[in-house]
Amino acid sequence: MEALPKNPANFAALTPLTFLHRAATVYSTRTSIIYNHTHFTWQQTHTRCRRLAAALHSLLHISKNDVVSVLAPNIPAMYEMHFAVPMAGAILNTINTRLDAPNIALILHHSEAKLLFVDHQLVPLASNALRHLREEKEEPLPIMVVIEEPAGATTHKNAVGGLEYEELIAAGDPTAELPVITDEWDAISLNYTSGTTSAPKGVVYSHRGAYLSTLSLLLQWGMGTEPVYLWSLPMFHCNGWTFTWGIAARGGTNVCIRSTSAEVMYKAIADHGVTHMCCAPVVFNFLFDSREAEDHKKKTNFVVEVLTGGSPPPASLLEKVKKMGFHVTHAYGMTEATGAALVCEWQAEWNQLSAEQRTRLKARQGISVLSLTEVDVKETSGLTMESVPRDGKAVGEIVLRGSSVMKGYFKNEKATAEVFRDGWFLTGDVGVVHPDGYVEIKDRIKDIIISGGENICSVEVEKVLHSYYEVLEAAVVAMPHARWGETPCAFVAVKGEVATKLTEDEILAYCRSNMPRFMVPRKVVFLEELPKNSAGKIEKKTLREMAREFKAGMVKSERSSLQGAKMNKKEKTTMVHSEQFVEQVLG
Amino acid sequence: MEALPKNPANFAALTPLTFLHRAATVYSTRTSIIYNHTHFTWQQTHTRCRRLAAALHSLLHISKNDVVSVLAPNIPAMYEMHFAVPMAGAILNTINTRLDAPNIALILHHSEAKLLFVDHQLVPLASNALRHLREEKEEPLPIMVVIEEPAGATTHKNAVGGLEYEELIAAGDPTAELPVITDEWDAISLNYTSGTTSAPKGVVYSHRGAYLSTLSLLLQWGMGTEPVYLWSLPMFHCNGWTFTWGIAARGGTNVCIRSTSAEVMYKAIADHGVTHMCCAPVVFNFLFDSREAEDHKKKTNFVVEVLTGGSPPPASLLEKVKKMGFHVTHAYGMTEATGAALVCEWQAEWNQLSAEQRTRLKARQGISVLSLTEVDVKETSGLTMESVPRDGKAVGEIVLRGSSVMKGYFKNEKATAEVFRDGWFLTGDVGVVHPDGYVEIKDRIKDIIISGGENICSVEVEKVLHSYYEVLEAAVVAMPHARWGETPCAFVAVKGEVATKLTEDEILAYCRSNMPRFMVPRKVVFLEELPKNSAGKIEKKTLREMAREFKAGMVKSERSSLQGAKMNKKEKTTMVHSEQFVEQVLG
Repeated sequence: MEALPKNPANFAALTPLTFLHRAATVYSTRTSIIYNHTHFTWQQTHTRCRRLAAALHSLLHISKNDVVSVLAPNIPAMYEMHFAVPMAGAILNTINTRLDAPNIALILHHSEAKLLFVDHQLVPLASNALRHLREEKEEPLPIMVVIEEPAGATTHKNAVGGLEYEELIAAGDPTAELPVITDEWDAISLNYTSGTTSAPKGVVYSHRGAYLSTLSLLLQWGMGTEPVYLWSLPMFHCNGWTFTWGIAARGGTNVCIRSTSAEVMYKAIADHGVTHMCCAPVVFNFLFDSREAEDHKKKTNFVVEVLTGGSPPPASLLEKVKKMGFHVTHAYGMTEATGAALVCEWQAEWNQLSAEQRTRLKARQGISVLSLTEVDVKETSGLTMESVPRDGKAVGEIVLRGSSVMKGYFKNEKATAEVFRDGWFLTGDVGVVHPDGYVEIKDRIKDIIISGGENICSVEVEKVLHSYYEVLEAAVVAMPHARWGETPCAFVAVKGEVATKLTEDEILAYCRSNMPRFMVPRKVVFLEELPKNSAGKIEKKTLREMAREFKAGMVKSERSSLQGAKMNKKEKTTMVHSEQFVEQVLG
Repeated sequence: MEALPKNPANFAALTPLTFLHRAATVYSTRTSIIYNHTHFTWQQTHTRCRRLAAALHSLLHISKNDVVSVLAPNIPAMYEMHFAVPMAGAILNTINTRLDAPNIALILHHSEAKLLFVDHQLVPLASNALRHLREEKEEPLPIMVVIEEPAGATTHKNAVGGLEYEELIAAGDPTAELPVITDEWDAISLNYTSGTTSAPKGVVYSHRGAYLSTLSLLLQWGMGTEPVYLWSLPMFHCNGWTFTWGIAARGGTNVCIRSTSAEVMYKAIADHGVTHMCCAPVVFNFLFDSREAEDHKKKTNFVVEVLTGGSPPPASLLEKVKKMGFHVTHAYGMTEATGAALVCEWQAEWNQLSAEQRTRLKARQGISVLSLTEVDVKETSGLTMESVPRDGKAVGEIVLRGSSVMKGYFKNEKATAEVFRDGWFLTGDVGVVHPDGYVEIKDRIKDIIISGGENICSVEVEKVLHSYYEVLEAAVVAMPHARWGETPCAFVAVKGEVATKLTEDEILAYCRSNMPRFMVPRKVVFLEELPKNSAGKIEKKTLREMAREFKAGMVKSERSSLQGAKMNKKEKTTMVHSEQFVEQVLG
């Protein structure tokens, strides 16, 4: 077979930027963005992005591989930057708005951001972060550009140097020539993990990875044309699980909201006919416990498709969700996999099963998206990397490979080398493979409790606790134990009216009748609310520290040494990995 | 931004082969193929393909870049070879079964096929082709492997050398190591255009192009999970418009059929709950005019999604189709674009329009699939390649670019150079862009009739003829004319019972009241059936030859010289292109 070389007609670098160019051509008059009284068409969004890219390029001298950071909620500007920044050849770094100033300073420092876009409400936080940064850094600080409310008074820009987002757009030439993406391996975005146990790590996506992940999640979720997508999931989580780019690919409408209160969300759903949204299961708690829930239930005669992740949706929740007019699909992923890696794809034959069976199936993490070539569960503690049997019982580490896996961690060779092994990305999650090929997560490697030589999956114990009606939140961690090494310690938050009445004994009795004896927690601690990180995930590290205080019997000060004692039999390298935080950020 | 190099965990060559590996893992027990009494699961299909690939590799010494040809209808073996042949590192060449022996010999010669798989019913045709080949060729003939009916008696294999498909599968080791695709630009298949006006040209697809085209057509058609796909479209057309690979990606069921008679198709739809099928509009004619149609109409309480292409579906047909429980989506494409390039994506707001408006919109070719970066309509006769205005009126040549455009024509540098110009692939089709961005095809460049300096789109005249109730088929071509240069000549086939009654005058009168005077045909010729090529497309070349016999007024023997006279004003290069055949093979 002779060489038929690539040419510009048959080879184009894969990049999500083509989704916007295409949308401007084929969906030009459709509504791209709705935000309060602001409405844009795809033609307008395209022009605005071109203007912004041109302004970044010519006025602010942003060039290839420069990092542009943004600190903003889900407003139109945040959406536009997902195209405009890479259109200028630069790399988009969205920062979690729930971080504190020192952490934001850390990210700005590490990423060497040239520019920082800040929503007007977050100017105090950003200014504070820049002050922190100035203390540590000699180089020039990033230029700050304030994003004012579209129709609002410009109150902040004079205070912080005069650069304002809309003025920048107005100043950009929409016909200016922009850099062309020729290498699809070029970086498009930089997303920092939330770093609860270690310094945040900067996950780098390529244009190719972003493009393929976007298409494959659209397929996996079955998102059709003209979706009306509610931005309930922060865009700073894996670029909105790729739906920043995906809604352009489908010619959909982005419903931008500043807050995710029940009131705002129900109003958006009703006003704009929302068809799709993403969120962590916890979002449903405040959606359903709200005053507006009853009204919504009466009004709704359509179904909102919800993609949920971060933690498996509890059974009780899934039943409620259905009654409220939501249809849930469960996904599993992490920043390093450009969002979703597994989706619990529904099978028609499951419709014949009992409600309980269906819920059990729906809570499984599922099957790989199409942009991964392979997902497996392997014995990673040894050197062989052998696959575990597909029996739903044998546990191993969930490992991935394929085009939606990140390029690596920015300026962190050591961390990058630790998560890539033998051609696989190690997720740090422990799971099983069911005979039908669906993967179910059992725990984070570091959350496994080893009691008397038995592995206890904290998630299994938590599942039982969740099934207890009065329990709102539950987390189980290892508590040092003189005889067994470790033993489970449960932390629960219960519903307001029962908080004063429910006793530890009642919960323990329930556990004893619903799980093997060795898994029953030795202690139940009642908290008003469980500690969470900026991504809304329960901070088990904090709970583990608390559990050490409640330690049963002899004190062992270091959990890792306990674990190490058992794992020694296999391979020390596992522990290096298990101690390192691979963020599961879906949610 | 530092280099974060590719590694096997984050970079995998894009290839449709991953769809089968994934299906075997995550859809292992689902039905992959149904053919009469044969049923396979995805696990079985995967194992069978591995066995066949191993046998090709180790027993028949097929290696990288060897061409493996196949001459078969839509049977399971034909499907399996779409994976097994590239799994052996080889290139699949499916041959149109409607070709005659000399043409098949031509393809075998040009492709240098090492192996020829032949369905048992086509052994006489293949043997005949090999005889032709032996006369022209010194090198060894391709090895012939007969595909017997799964449960049938082996009647042919002894006669032709002893190699049989199932025995080859049985002999292959499913655990043998197979070549790994490391360069996604490697060729996966070779599809010959049907070559009505020139020698067939071999269109080469890359693994990358096939992968991306598959995903993007799944998205564009909105094919969800678990489709039950009826193989009404020959797999030898652009690898079944990529659905050979796409059904594996979606974990669907392939319903294989040997013939596309109304009886077989209705039975398959009823027996297996078909959800999707592809076909040319002409297939509906024999589906609806059949004895079985009435039965089907009574039984059907579900909708079959149909992707149709090759020619725009006539209005009258679309109405019938709906009543029969089919839902049609219209696509436009060609072998060179790996099947569909444009899909007429439906817009919800069109549901408010009248039936007539909806039909008109549905007949447009539509918007680009996601694997194309751009589709445009350009003035290609000049040197500027300027885009025509998006007004639905200005005509130009439809041009494409992006990852689903072929690598080029096999061993044909000249033809390859002619269709790639300034970073675009020239389709040879004339079209307009409507203000909403939807493209509508007007004609093939060479089918444009130039009468008294006016361009007449033959398709426009044909549309009017089709709207005449009694007309079954219609085609309009240029007839030389002493005064006007050319003038339209119509060929029609009418319904049996009216054939003897309908007169030329009646049709001409109808035309005069439904189109501008200059477009009205000068002559109407009644034929029992219009001449068609092996792909079922009307052979306008033959009709043009006939029209020359009926020439009105002074004879001009060469149409190209007439056209050339006009085009001189612009640029001679157009004519070079317009005379060259770019097959529009959808259908």
